[in-house]
Amino acid sequence: MSRTFRLVVACPDRVGIVAKVSNFLANYNASITEANHHSDLATGWFFMRHEICADSMPLDLETLRAAFAPIAAEYAMQWRITDSTEPKRVLLMASRESHCLADLLHRWHSGELECSIPAVISNHDDLRSMVEWHGIPFHHVPVNPQEKDEAFAEVAELVERYRADTIVLARYMQILPPALCDQFANRVINIHHSFLPSFAGAKPYHQAYLRGVKLIGATCHYVTSELDAGPIIEQDIERISHRDSIADMVRIGKDCEKTALAKGLRYHLEDRVLVHDNKTVVFA
Amino acid sequence: MSRTFRLVVACPDRVGIVAKVSNFLANYNASITEANHHSDLATGWFFMRHEICADSMPLDLETLRAAFAPIAAEYAMQWRITDSTEPKRVLLMASRESHCLADLLHRWHSGELECSIPAVISNHDDLRSMVEWHGIPFHHVPVNPQEKDEAFAEVAELVERYRADTIVLARYMQILPPALCDQFANRVINIHHSFLPSFAGAKPYHQAYLRGVKLIGATCHYVTSELDAGPIIEQDIERISHRDSIADMVRIGKDCEKTALAKGLRYHLEDRVLVHDNKTVVFA
Amino acid sequence: MSRTFRLVVACPDRVGIVAKVSNFLANYNASITEANHHSDLATGWFFMRHEICADSMPLDLETLRAAFAPIAAEYAMQWRITDSTEPKRVLLMASRESHCLADLLHRWHSGELECSIPAVISNHDDLRSMVEWHGIPFHHVPVNPQEKDEAFAEVAELVERYRADTIVLARYMQILPPALCDQFANRVINIHHSFLPSFAGAKPYHQAYLRGVKLIGATCHYVTSELDAGPIIEQDIERISHRDSIADMVRIGKDCEKTALAKGLRYHLEDRVLVHDNKTVVFA
Amino acid sequence: MSRTFRLVVACPDRVGIVAKVSNFLANYNASITEANHHSDLATGWFFMRHEICADSMPLDLETLRAAFAPIAAEYAMQWRITDSTEPKRVLLMASRESHCLADLLHRWHSGELECSIPAVISNHDDLRSMVEWHGIPFHHVPVNPQEKDEAFAEVAELVERYRADTIVLARYMQILPPALCDQFANRVINIHHSFLPSFAGAKPYHQAYLRGVKLIGATCHYVTSELDAGPIIEQDIERISHRDSIADMVRIGKDCEKTALAKGLRYHLEDRVLVHDNKTVVFA
Repeated sequence: MSRTFRLVVACPDRVGIVAKVSNFLANYNASITEANHHSDLATGWFFMRHEICADSMPLDLETLRAAFAPIAAEYAMQWRITDSTEPKRVLLMASRESHCLADLLHRWHSGELECSIPAVISNHDDLRSMVEWHGIPFHHVPVNPQEKDEAFAEVAELVERYRADTIVLARYMQILPPALCDQFANRVINIHHSFLPSFAGAKPYHQAYLRGVKLIGATCHYVTSELDAGPIIEQDIERISHRDSIADMVRIGKDCEKTALAKGLRYHLEDRVLVHDNKTVVFA
Repeated sequence: MSRTFRLVVACPDRVGIVAKVSNFLANYNASITEANHHSDLATGWFFMRHEICADSMPLDLETLRAAFAPIAAEYAMQWRITDSTEPKRVLLMASRESHCLADLLHRWHSGELECSIPAVISNHDDLRSMVEWHGIPFHHVPVNPQEKDEAFAEVAELVERYRADTIVLARYMQILPPALCDQFANRVINIHHSFLPSFAGAKPYHQAYLRGVKLIGATCHYVTSELDAGPIIEQDIERISHRDSIADMVRIGKDCEKTALAKGLRYHLEDRVLVHDNKTVVFA
Repeated sequence: MSRTFRLVVACPDRVGIVAKVSNFLANYNASITEANHHSDLATGWFFMRHEICADSMPLDLETLRAAFAPIAAEYAMQWRITDSTEPKRVLLMASRESHCLADLLHRWHSGELECSIPAVISNHDDLRSMVEWHGIPFHHVPVNPQEKDEAFAEVAELVERYRADTIVLARYMQILPPALCDQFANRVINIHHSFLPSFAGAKPYHQAYLRGVKLIGATCHYVTSELDAGPIIEQDIERISHRDSIADMVRIGKDCEKTALAKGLRYHLEDRVLVHDNKTVVFA
Repeated sequence: MSRTFRLVVACPDRVGIVAKVSNFLANYNASITEANHHSDLATGWFFMRHEICADSMPLDLETLRAAFAPIAAEYAMQWRITDSTEPKRVLLMASRESHCLADLLHRWHSGELECSIPAVISNHDDLRSMVEWHGIPFHHVPVNPQEKDEAFAEVAELVERYRADTIVLARYMQILPPALCDQFANRVINIHHSFLPSFAGAKPYHQAYLRGVKLIGATCHYVTSELDAGPIIEQDIERISHRDSIADMVRIGKDCEKTALAKGLRYHLEDRVLVHDNKTVVFA
């Protein structure tokens, strides 16, 4: 994979944005490998992502950012430029269930996920050996109902120590404190085991069983302080029937969870997700 | 399609049911073309459906029913035996949207749906010509908010006059009175334009747009007096993205609605759906 | 739907194309409602589609084309600019099977397909009444194995007379003569009832049954003189099982055929399909 | 999971089979947790699977087999009775690609696959550490083009030594010798990375890329001496677009391969697959 810069922009829509940005890039001889635009006619907002061959430009990352800043200011852009050779630092959090964690670790280990994983935190010690086999530090931080504050202070300290820029709740089963959600807005990714907004909250497979649905699913979303209500990045579903017990649904649902989480995380890592008004634009 | 009898049974599970029924059938030399069983371990209930080549048995329908009645009594069965050459009489109800109605009429016209359609009722006159081209009587019964009782009395009279045994709400957009729902329990089929239980009630595509889901769907279910809460027969979904406006979602969703309704209705017509505890067993 | 211009471009990739085109559009104050780019790194070819609010530009269609021509020449572009208010003229061809034809006619009738349908041609007379109910002329052109040349001369004459610019083979079941395929390159759309390249040629559902596949499908593609080998626009599949007879597969497959054909045709009508090297870029 | 017996039968269809078997089971007071029947009208063959609560019967496995044998003889049945507490012994074979192997090992490790895995054989040493972490012996048996016979003699010896009753080719990328295929007829499971019969043979993703398909897939099948032509157990597909390079297709396809292989293997382990005429009946 050769080095690329990713220019990601969201701003109020108006005539000439693409021309302005394209001229800017063409003037520096930028070779664009992928470009995506979206005009949201309902909100009047514009979204854009360019992936640029880094070697084609005579600028380093910092100079490029400085050169682009005036355009960003002119158009009131929310923007970032990232470098594919500086992968995000993803801290994984899990509980006892191993399927999502094992899936992400294997994808990372085989080079499919473009990130580093500086550490894994769990409120149980069960998955330590699996994590350590991958050469990743494992931290057991029990979450005692009476001492949640202490536990999450330790989590926050670890997040800080490992300089994480993304947190993934790989079936963590605990609710993060609002302060951490706010600090990592649009950077905490959760997998919920239902096709939201159906069956938010606890025991979604039990809820699905009782309602007698014919499809179950999973939802990958950014965490906000409102439970299971954050911007949805990806959803996946699988067909079930009357023959499927709750145990079957749990088993079948695991594959949805793994797929939706892995896709959602990959989009995030490649700067393909833009959030606006509690909804996502995903340039998949 | 050669003539078949369909024996459909639901009863408390216990040892020997299948043996009893199979012996009964074997003693009459019944050639079974399809057999389905389901033991619901959670509720202790048993479900069974046999499709039998009618010519293989020396009994007519009434005699067969009489012969089976003692077994049914012994095992406290809810049961029925139907004859594939006596198709159900399906009364269709629609409003202004034509896609579900046109889809069902075409499937019926080309022999895919095993039923007769004695009439179509609509609260608008828009679809008259389409219905009449198929040689089916069309009744325009406006539903005036002030005179709902009169309107539904007329509907009930038409249902009676046409000896309908199934009612299909093909995007009818009106709520049937509870008395009619009760009279036709598990025989009124509705298509709701969301993957229930998400987005029950009005304007589900608007709700879906606001929530920013990545999948939309449709749900075919039996109507009960509780809105959008009846037993689910079939669901279908389609993937969407940030590029899809509400109008796009309406268009995409139509295909889900048509598919889920046509499948659900076919299952019903072929006596493949058994209802228990507000859930369905579908021997698809 | 407000009036839009669609600028569609394919050309060898090089730096500055997007800047050039964006500047051109911005200079005329064009309000872009949708933009799609694709750089094919394997072939070094670039593809682009812009949908532009027509009222935002001070040019009519002809002037716009003239103004853009020098840029097109400079970059060796294959290009077109179309006007959404000048819908394509689609001639439908069918045989005896009605499902694809009925589906397209209903979508057109309800405003979902942006085209006119000046006529339907069939080698059988069965579907005349259905077509004429829609107010569309129906031509019965039998295709006698001994007199194919005469038949296709009549087809060619009708295509000419109705000034068709697109031909859709909605389960026509006859092979068009190569001359007509060449004349309408990338403008004859066929639906094949298998997921190509599996089961090309005759009786694909029989082939699928014999092979024991667990998925069947349909393929919408442009017709070339090589049978079932043209550029694929869209494919759809459905799951089957050992319980499904060939008749079931035919029934199930019909829904795939309708869906894939309707999607493929819609993409074509909205100028979303670009063909290069016997493959398609579909800006869906 | 409580202990069950699985009675699996295939035989020429005739009246009274179900009655005979059901009586047999009822006479021993068998509590049936799952029953599936299939009459193949095209071949006149009958297939049946019962899952029986072992504790409900007063017989041990051997006595049950002996008691059933006369019925089997009378109806010319191909049959087996297995015990869920005697899991199959599955020998896994892999090459360098880890995704299918890692997926199966994780599913086995977390209790989702009902089998033992006595050993893993690979023609490369890359995956040794991953396998050994799971506590499973790893054998590196290089397959030298000049010394294939020696290599497969060693494989056969390992299969024998570990008393394997099923062999899974988890992207093994080598062709097994016909003698081994014959010895393990319907017990060697392969995952092919295309939706067969499309793209049989080498480099299916390259073939798919060149043909420009819009769906890619994977096929889980029993291995026969004819390459990629054995009975299909399960297939899975994923949608792709013009944006996907061959590398993207490889990545996307991996998820299909894992899913189809895991499902197919689970069906096999639970004795849900019956083979007849190079096709499968899968009582999923």
